[in-house]
Amino acid sequence: MFARIRRLLLGKPLPTARQMHERLPKFLALPVFASDAVSSVAYATEEILLTLMVIGSAAWGVSLPIAGAIAILIAIVATSYRQTIFAYPSGGGSYTVAKENLGTIYGLIAAASLLTDYTLTVSVSVAAGVAAIISLDPGLAQHVTAMGVLAVLFVAFINLRGVRESGALFAPPTYVFVATLCTLIVVGLMKVFSGHVTPVVADPAGWAKGFAESEGHHFGGIQTVGMFLILRAFASGCSALTGIEAIANGIPAFRPPESKNAATTMTWMAAILAVLVLGITYLAHAYHVFPAEHETVISQLARTVFGRGWFWYTIQIATAAILILAANTAFQDFPRLAYILAGDRFAPRQLANRGDKLAFSNGILMLALVAALLIVIFHGDTTRLIPLYAVGVFVSFTLSQFGMGVRQTNARHKGWRARAGLSFFGGSVTCVVALVIAVTKFIHGAFIVILVIPFLVWVFYRIHGHYIELGKKLRLTEEEFEEPEPVMSTSIVLVSSIHKGILPALQYARSLSDDCRALYIEVDDIESTMLKERWPKFGLDIPLVILESPYRTITDQLLRYVDEAKKDRPNHTITVVLPEFVVGKWWHKMLHNQSSLLIKLAMMTRRDIVVTNVRYFVDE
Amino acid sequence: MFARIRRLLLGKPLPTARQMHERLPKFLALPVFASDAVSSVAYATEEILLTLMVIGSAAWGVSLPIAGAIAILIAIVATSYRQTIFAYPSGGGSYTVAKENLGTIYGLIAAASLLTDYTLTVSVSVAAGVAAIISLDPGLAQHVTAMGVLAVLFVAFINLRGVRESGALFAPPTYVFVATLCTLIVVGLMKVFSGHVTPVVADPAGWAKGFAESEGHHFGGIQTVGMFLILRAFASGCSALTGIEAIANGIPAFRPPESKNAATTMTWMAAILAVLVLGITYLAHAYHVFPAEHETVISQLARTVFGRGWFWYTIQIATAAILILAANTAFQDFPRLAYILAGDRFAPRQLANRGDKLAFSNGILMLALVAALLIVIFHGDTTRLIPLYAVGVFVSFTLSQFGMGVRQTNARHKGWRARAGLSFFGGSVTCVVALVIAVTKFIHGAFIVILVIPFLVWVFYRIHGHYIELGKKLRLTEEEFEEPEPVMSTSIVLVSSIHKGILPALQYARSLSDDCRALYIEVDDIESTMLKERWPKFGLDIPLVILESPYRTITDQLLRYVDEAKKDRPNHTITVVLPEFVVGKWWHKMLHNQSSLLIKLAMMTRRDIVVTNVRYFVDE
Repeated sequence: MFARIRRLLLGKPLPTARQMHERLPKFLALPVFASDAVSSVAYATEEILLTLMVIGSAAWGVSLPIAGAIAILIAIVATSYRQTIFAYPSGGGSYTVAKENLGTIYGLIAAASLLTDYTLTVSVSVAAGVAAIISLDPGLAQHVTAMGVLAVLFVAFINLRGVRESGALFAPPTYVFVATLCTLIVVGLMKVFSGHVTPVVADPAGWAKGFAESEGHHFGGIQTVGMFLILRAFASGCSALTGIEAIANGIPAFRPPESKNAATTMTWMAAILAVLVLGITYLAHAYHVFPAEHETVISQLARTVFGRGWFWYTIQIATAAILILAANTAFQDFPRLAYILAGDRFAPRQLANRGDKLAFSNGILMLALVAALLIVIFHGDTTRLIPLYAVGVFVSFTLSQFGMGVRQTNARHKGWRARAGLSFFGGSVTCVVALVIAVTKFIHGAFIVILVIPFLVWVFYRIHGHYIELGKKLRLTEEEFEEPEPVMSTSIVLVSSIHKGILPALQYARSLSDDCRALYIEVDDIESTMLKERWPKFGLDIPLVILESPYRTITDQLLRYVDEAKKDRPNHTITVVLPEFVVGKWWHKMLHNQSSLLIKLAMMTRRDIVVTNVRYFVDE
Repeated sequence: MFARIRRLLLGKPLPTARQMHERLPKFLALPVFASDAVSSVAYATEEILLTLMVIGSAAWGVSLPIAGAIAILIAIVATSYRQTIFAYPSGGGSYTVAKENLGTIYGLIAAASLLTDYTLTVSVSVAAGVAAIISLDPGLAQHVTAMGVLAVLFVAFINLRGVRESGALFAPPTYVFVATLCTLIVVGLMKVFSGHVTPVVADPAGWAKGFAESEGHHFGGIQTVGMFLILRAFASGCSALTGIEAIANGIPAFRPPESKNAATTMTWMAAILAVLVLGITYLAHAYHVFPAEHETVISQLARTVFGRGWFWYTIQIATAAILILAANTAFQDFPRLAYILAGDRFAPRQLANRGDKLAFSNGILMLALVAALLIVIFHGDTTRLIPLYAVGVFVSFTLSQFGMGVRQTNARHKGWRARAGLSFFGGSVTCVVALVIAVTKFIHGAFIVILVIPFLVWVFYRIHGHYIELGKKLRLTEEEFEEPEPVMSTSIVLVSSIHKGILPALQYARSLSDDCRALYIEVDDIESTMLKERWPKFGLDIPLVILESPYRTITDQLLRYVDEAKKDRPNHTITVVLPEFVVGKWWHKMLHNQSSLLIKLAMMTRRDIVVTNVRYFVDE
């Protein structure tokens, strides 16, 4: 029945051989891998302005150069990562690159950073997606956490059904989002240049939120904190870059020629991202938009440029859809990275199992659980989650690019100087950005991530140690192997009274060994007398032992008896046979003692003891 | 470790032979069996007055004849039950009496009524005990539910430690309660007769509560509903009788001569009960006391007669103690009745197990769970629980006494006419009372109990049917018994790779049968190749079978293979041997697949298949 429900929910299982066919063409790979990076446009500008709000209308002026810096950063990182795509066509991303070229510990740091960031991607994207829906109807604001958790479960479910179907499902929202935002930017700019700018009707609650935020952050005055504030705004905006490395990790999901297709997709993605960040920030500047409590910047822009019509609705729903589905990118990459780690014995091996639909089910479930938990803890508030975000991703960017630089330097292929130069330059830039984020966001939450990353690295090493140790202990070599002695067997059947249900157990025990006996532990002396009397007839010639149990516990007496039997026969394997009768209905099962489980638990620490249930089916 | 914790909490286990020594002398039996009945004095007068509050100060006048009627009822029931004690020295109470003399179904109705009432006894007594504590400090009122649940768990715990210790623990509060209440009555009466009566300082909130209650019950006017109101007040006061039958059920816990000692204790108890009910009701009348929101009637009386001094504190604490411990009576009787029902195969046989300390642990736990749930549902409010109460107990009184009447009539011993007459008279009186309670309290909650009783009877019959049916199916008779054929054995070892951990399983499988093979289900073709290559060296000459598994599931393929093997060898028992390696630390266990449990679950419906784990201990 359980199997049937699973089949209904997940569809038909896929054979391993179909793995190849689950490859994605570029137009489907772009939405699957780029939805994370592209969707961050929905909150990047918003978070920049929220940080700058404290300086009032000067904020718009400052936000433009910040957006420019972010666009340049996108270009640098994308160019640098294109090199990685060609160097590592089998994927693996930062973990593999850093591990191979810088050493295992750097690889693990990159892996820990990425796993942390994928989890946060899910939480942040879903929270921002829910915010886009709330912009349509602020009355929904009270259900924000529940909506977030449901969205996480929905994306997890989609992913458990498998990669291919996700591609088809995730393409429309991404393309609609990009198309509508481009339209918004073009029409908005036309209005600006034709002088038709209507200022946004400011929501007083929004201003209130902004100032409360700023006060909460304890800034002294505009003059003294100018640079720090600008860096903090830049750090917030850097959340736009998260997810940009997704393609480099997922090259094997592309159709051949994998590297070329992946590199082209990477270029498209970076271009779209940069255009959208610049465009939205410029429009916010031109239309004087500030973040409001229950309405996003994009919603305010769309509402001002097109009015409260179908276009506004379309843009909001597309934003919500791409954001909630952006979490999908993380659902692709988290389990894949976990699988690679498990293969290298740094993560539990359960993470390496492919499920019915070829997806890494355990990794998907683990990610869904943690991300949903984060949404509950932070009440689904994007602004509170953002400071945790992006540190990890920039750490992994840095390690990956330095790794590439080292590799190029060692290989000394034609043109290696320019290439390695680009890698080291990119790495240095992202390193500085990582430091800026860590410092400016430290007390707002970045410290959590800075603690989690080394903790995860420690856990990876502990797991690795266990598997390696165990592997050594279990290894069989020709030198030390010697044919073991045949096992000698003793069997003990535990009986509680004489009925049909014990016969199969007696037969089985007799077949195991000639050294076989039945054991009755006396909890009831009337039963004991009856047993003694009827045994010669029904006992299949197996000797019966009756043990008194003054404390009415069966397990203790059985353990004692088995231990003694073991002492007499040190080289025997003792099989304890427990007769069990199987009844049909669930409530019938509840009417019988479940003592065999207790007995098995008690025997768990005993060596050379095998506990076996022999079942008798009561026909109904 | 679990065993050690249990030992610490429950003390040393008691041997079965000590059962006899757990008998109680009269002065300890009285508190154990009478605390329920006697403690109900703490709320009986209160509930009478609460019902009558709607008629204002006329209530006190009406309450006196009601208390008189209850005292007479106590005398009738106690006299009638003394006969039962002598007729049934082995205990068993209403269930046994009704079953033997009226028929099984009446016995089961009595049993269902009693089980329901024992559960309510726990909830009501604990709720009233908590109310006595809140009288000392109304600030505690917000924790009422939590205090109630904790008290239930405490009493359950005491009972899990065994009968004898309960007697010693429960004597002091009962005796202090009886002594202080008697003192209160005597001193109160002296003050009344010497003309020193100071009226109670009324708590306005209390009056408000009373009137709100009355309005909630929709009474039209005093004239029209007079009789119904009086009957309802009487019904509320009848809660004083609950628990009076406890002694008749628990005769085997008395020291020999059991019946005589029990009968004497019964008389004492009835006398104490009648005196206290009359005394408290009279004092409430004389001192003009009305129930208040957060102070009980007894608290108001004690405060008025003795002032806010140590006596008031003592009486409150003794009241709380006897009430909370009164639940103990139910904890003695519920498991004992459940044990008798289980012995007759009307209840799950787990209820017939005696635990370490000779107590019926499962019954105790079940009672604690349901009673705590009732407290949570009714927010620990005595007044809301009372309407559910007492219906069941009067149903069982009625059945028990009619049963005794039938028995005496059939036996026709000397003086049978008078005795049977007393039984039938008592039965008729309690029958009328049961109807009065059911009708006057119906919409306030009695309907729940009226639905639960037949449902429980139906459940008893279903359980009985299952056990009887099963017994028939399992019965072995000399006529139909024939020595079964020796079992032929086939064994299959499931291997995942070659390591030390599979060797014990291979050895064991080889010892089971010559028809033995190892099975590898191919989820990974590299592993498969290695296995084929190394098997001749390490496989202990057991043939290796490799099965492809395109869907990566081990269980399905294994099932298919076993089913086919079974088809070839219909008269064989097939043992599936699963190698398992045991690692030390809990987190190490989490790093390995728990597939053997899944395999066992999948095999559960297959006949003549035995699934066995053979463990290899990895030394650490």
